[in-house]
Amino acid sequence: MAVVTLLSDFGLRDPYVAEMKGVILSICPGAKIVDISHEVEKFNLRMGAFFLASAAPYFPKNTIHLAVVDPGVGTKRRAIIIETERSLYVGPDNGILILSAQTEGIANVYHITNKRYMLPNVSRTFHGRDVFAPVAAHLANNVKPKEFGPKIESYEKPSFTKPIVKGREIAGEILHIDGFGNIITNIPASLIEKINLTEGCSLKIEVGKKMLKLKLCKAYGETEKGAPLAIIGSHNFLELSVNMGNASEKLGIKQGELVKITPVTTSH
Amino acid sequence: MAVVTLLSDFGLRDPYVAEMKGVILSICPGAKIVDISHEVEKFNLRMGAFFLASAAPYFPKNTIHLAVVDPGVGTKRRAIIIETERSLYVGPDNGILILSAQTEGIANVYHITNKRYMLPNVSRTFHGRDVFAPVAAHLANNVKPKEFGPKIESYEKPSFTKPIVKGREIAGEILHIDGFGNIITNIPASLIEKINLTEGCSLKIEVGKKMLKLKLCKAYGETEKGAPLAIIGSHNFLELSVNMGNASEKLGIKQGELVKITPVTTSH
Amino acid sequence: MAVVTLLSDFGLRDPYVAEMKGVILSICPGAKIVDISHEVEKFNLRMGAFFLASAAPYFPKNTIHLAVVDPGVGTKRRAIIIETERSLYVGPDNGILILSAQTEGIANVYHITNKRYMLPNVSRTFHGRDVFAPVAAHLANNVKPKEFGPKIESYEKPSFTKPIVKGREIAGEILHIDGFGNIITNIPASLIEKINLTEGCSLKIEVGKKMLKLKLCKAYGETEKGAPLAIIGSHNFLELSVNMGNASEKLGIKQGELVKITPVTTSH
Repeated sequence: MAVVTLLSDFGLRDPYVAEMKGVILSICPGAKIVDISHEVEKFNLRMGAFFLASAAPYFPKNTIHLAVVDPGVGTKRRAIIIETERSLYVGPDNGILILSAQTEGIANVYHITNKRYMLPNVSRTFHGRDVFAPVAAHLANNVKPKEFGPKIESYEKPSFTKPIVKGREIAGEILHIDGFGNIITNIPASLIEKINLTEGCSLKIEVGKKMLKLKLCKAYGETEKGAPLAIIGSHNFLELSVNMGNASEKLGIKQGELVKITPVTTSH
Repeated sequence: MAVVTLLSDFGLRDPYVAEMKGVILSICPGAKIVDISHEVEKFNLRMGAFFLASAAPYFPKNTIHLAVVDPGVGTKRRAIIIETERSLYVGPDNGILILSAQTEGIANVYHITNKRYMLPNVSRTFHGRDVFAPVAAHLANNVKPKEFGPKIESYEKPSFTKPIVKGREIAGEILHIDGFGNIITNIPASLIEKINLTEGCSLKIEVGKKMLKLKLCKAYGETEKGAPLAIIGSHNFLELSVNMGNASEKLGIKQGELVKITPVTTSH
Repeated sequence: MAVVTLLSDFGLRDPYVAEMKGVILSICPGAKIVDISHEVEKFNLRMGAFFLASAAPYFPKNTIHLAVVDPGVGTKRRAIIIETERSLYVGPDNGILILSAQTEGIANVYHITNKRYMLPNVSRTFHGRDVFAPVAAHLANNVKPKEFGPKIESYEKPSFTKPIVKGREIAGEILHIDGFGNIITNIPASLIEKINLTEGCSLKIEVGKKMLKLKLCKAYGETEKGAPLAIIGSHNFLELSVNMGNASEKLGIKQGELVKITPVTTSH
């Protein structure tokens, strides 16, 4: 039973997501459809790419991931399939798929051109339903990726900034504020280790004009209720949190802000 | 494997939708349940009917559509099953099902009276769980519609206004503002063609005291970022949109407003 | 085909819920996953416990209920499995599972310690994905509860207040405001009967400094549109509602407020 995941910025009120599911089940009645998120901020490719890359590793091998954050729908932007070591990705060629696909190792990329695998009438505004959903369903039916169109070598790569290490300083960025108000940076645990920071240490954190000194904790509960802390989050990035509180609100820190991390050095 | 869709105004926080799903799976363990929307505005039959009619055509033949927007729950309003050429509909007799069922062609309508197919205790306030969910599940188990109660000839028909054409002017209404802020009118593409408007033309659009002149585009990307446009949307209605923006906010247009469309005539 | 329900305060935007589903389907590909709610107010154990107890009775026997509202994640709070007459419960030992499990009759409680049934790397902040999801999936694969760790006799019991009857007065509390604005009290229908109140009677209702006199109705439609009423809701608790309106907004009553109910006595 093929698993098909869906990610979009369509929201949960409108019937758009259901229309995609109806199309998929019409073509592949046994498909197991799982929503990753449909509440990606409108047109926010980076948020969509981050959500997809966060969730994909936890899905079974051979899962088909359909992702549509698609400001260019109806223009000449291409529709693509990416084949990796463990999954298939379907969506627009605008970078939304790449972050996750790259992590898994991109094997082949195909330009979707074969109209046989699209709905008979392709609208100008909703390729999620008319192109990507039927393609995902046919992939779930074991149609080979090469049947959908020619293999291509060049495709859009997102230019998401990466954190930079200088000596014992890491310069990064706030990647996402989650629903708890946790402030997720783009700084992976591996870089934190690289500058010899371990749990129990204190960190100097500079965001805009704010200067914070936080302990790198193992659990939220290590600090008092309402107190801020630093922690390696569940996707292995450095996060700033508040025990049972909303860190983004308490610290006044937003998505997209730049962040600098240094160890707190004890004078002697 | 029967597909059962659910539509309601129950929202996604409360456990009401899950209770309906539990009931369905208790009676028909193999049912494939798909949500159309549970974020229909409370008691807004028209929004519910529009969502159902938008999504239903994309589902497989023999899908069972359960829809509950039900301000009259507990009063004498009837519970009905509608049989069409391609689907079965279950819900209150208040018009919510009709728009979609009419499009498919209504074959038979049944008044649900047989208590054998309801939960043992029917509450006064939640027929979605106690009546409609078990009925949908028994239909998914191939119980024939006539087993649920007598065939009826009269039922509620919604009185949704239809657009009117006078010469080269179309008078319609704003049907829905979607999550992107797209302004969906009740004017179908067929009427736009009837007054000889084709893509590339300019339209004069009158909404309340506002006068707009917009190009009928093939894709959002045909205008600059932030610029308004007219487009035939994915359900074949005329829509007013903003490329990568929120048309409803930018143009100050709301659901329910009246709209007049005329071609822009070039003087010579 | 095992049914696994999910309840959390993770919200619907972030990919956290999808990660749990990916983990479950990786271990038990045939699992039927149903969301109860992911919009439980952050850290609100009582709301979570109430939602779970509301929905669980409608699910098939042998359903596995996974619930994570987990302010103590990463601290020493235990992970547990509760076996009842009809279901299995998986979640943190903080009371979230107990209300529902007690109603069904708690047979055995197990402390989850066997790392074999967890993900290889357990994060500090997301046991929903790393511990509870794999445990639920292995239970769905018919691994016996005792395989996950030792049986325990003591566990956290929530101290939710219960309504008190004094003569013909009931003192209770506002349990929940639902998405319609219905005001759900913790006063069960059985207590209403105990003080000889039946449908058609009038009730004196005291909430804070507000004094209301409402009719105990059989259906919302018994009063005029916009008029308040009392009704036995779909979970058999006394509710205050407004016919086609929002009772919480209209009456200015909030979750957590104390409420006193007495019959209206007619003088003679």
